[in-house]
Amino acid sequence: MVNQIYKHVFSFFLSVLLLQSSTVSYVRKSFDLNKPCRHFVLYLHNIAYDDDNAANATAATIVNPLGLGDYSFGRVIICDNPVTMDQNYLSKPVARAQGFYFYNKKTNFNTWVAWTLVFNSTKHKGTFTIMDANPYGMEPTRDLAIVGGTGDFLMTRGIATLKTKLSQGSKYFCLEMNIKLYECY
Amino acid sequence: MVNQIYKHVFSFFLSVLLLQSSTVSYVRKSFDLNKPCRHFVLYLHNIAYDDDNAANATAATIVNPLGLGDYSFGRVIICDNPVTMDQNYLSKPVARAQGFYFYNKKTNFNTWVAWTLVFNSTKHKGTFTIMDANPYGMEPTRDLAIVGGTGDFLMTRGIATLKTKLSQGSKYFCLEMNIKLYECY
Amino acid sequence: MVNQIYKHVFSFFLSVLLLQSSTVSYVRKSFDLNKPCRHFVLYLHNIAYDDDNAANATAATIVNPLGLGDYSFGRVIICDNPVTMDQNYLSKPVARAQGFYFYNKKTNFNTWVAWTLVFNSTKHKGTFTIMDANPYGMEPTRDLAIVGGTGDFLMTRGIATLKTKLSQGSKYFCLEMNIKLYECY
Repeated sequence: MVNQIYKHVFSFFLSVLLLQSSTVSYVRKSFDLNKPCRHFVLYLHNIAYDDDNAANATAATIVNPLGLGDYSFGRVIICDNPVTMDQNYLSKPVARAQGFYFYNKKTNFNTWVAWTLVFNSTKHKGTFTIMDANPYGMEPTRDLAIVGGTGDFLMTRGIATLKTKLSQGSKYFCLEMNIKLYECY
Repeated sequence: MVNQIYKHVFSFFLSVLLLQSSTVSYVRKSFDLNKPCRHFVLYLHNIAYDDDNAANATAATIVNPLGLGDYSFGRVIICDNPVTMDQNYLSKPVARAQGFYFYNKKTNFNTWVAWTLVFNSTKHKGTFTIMDANPYGMEPTRDLAIVGGTGDFLMTRGIATLKTKLSQGSKYFCLEMNIKLYECY
Repeated sequence: MVNQIYKHVFSFFLSVLLLQSSTVSYVRKSFDLNKPCRHFVLYLHNIAYDDDNAANATAATIVNPLGLGDYSFGRVIICDNPVTMDQNYLSKPVARAQGFYFYNKKTNFNTWVAWTLVFNSTKHKGTFTIMDANPYGMEPTRDLAIVGGTGDFLMTRGIATLKTKLSQGSKYFCLEMNIKLYECY
């Protein structure tokens, strides 16, 4: 009888091991979206260069719109935008949002965004990159993909939920970025 | 004797647990490329803007080629291309391919592509982004990496295999996109 | 007594199985940064186009700087740079670095980079893409994220550590790229 127990437990155990070591054909995981491994809210400030504000400007148009539709299709902006912990653009930046974005829709305000958040303080060192469509003219909140990172954010992935908090014509805007990371290393 | 069995099974079991909980120094997985967790074929249509077709155009050159070689080196295109379930460009779009691409080879037609597929229907909501080199002048089928997503395609990764189905000079092209996702959440 | 052993082992075992099959709310893994699944060092060579060197040029400015600060803010470069196994730019390329980069800081030399390494030899076929900020004016070594790939580098992720080995004004530079992949399929 003892032998039988031994055999049963052992064979059950072996089968589990075999299942675990078999070739995975794909990865299918379930996430509880409410439980990121890291979660924080940041504010991005974009002060557009207008030829007269070189000292303050944080972003500049490098290609002008084509005149295809009324929503700036073709305008390309390069930025090095300060990122703060609150909505005040004079607060001490905790990161810079480096990268570019451009307008790509004829029928509404819509940008395509590639921004790397660069942290370089005693508290955080590292980067992660947000890259996705940003249909800000159509949707009050937009989810954008976070696709990779370095340093404290090594190989991280997740979602940045963007909300426009303030917009002053083409001069200034402030975005709330709700950062939710689901892969942390 | 019973005790011995107990000890054996227990120690074997413990060692497996320890192995599993130890620090992973890297991830090495095997994929069966024929078994994606999601698989679908889409068709992308690119109608180039020529100053006279503002109503139909879905893509526009924002930087002209430099004259370095005979293969459009330096030309940059921004697009908001319709994506359909079949090859007919008049079919109802199921997504838009938003992003940009540019020509970057002196000796052949080769583009570098960053396109976000934006789904916004009752059936699918979400995005994923294709980013890679696209050597269409040299290779009839090209694998491009899918690096992240949102919504129904949250944090997905995989491969888009592109084939040019139709090309009418610089006016129009249609691409088949064979989408294989290997990470689904 | 035998029954009790059986129960103990079985219940312990079951609880482990249950733990393993529960929904994962996020992924938190520890990496030993010194143990990548793949590790190699490559050298990238960038010969800037100056209107007179079409035969040798491997990269060209497509948008000129704006004059915002003294560090080329706004300059955009498209490249198809040879990548070799040693520092000699005449060595046989093992890959091409296709993509673009631009200058985005008013106060120092800083680029934002998106480069796809394209391997197409009998030894290696496939691509992977490096995308991140590259603060080369401030930091002798910079970590940039590797966010995806195809072929031999299917869905890979990791870090490229860049060092400038040689820089001849705006004409030529050579970068050492220390490639460490932590996800291999």
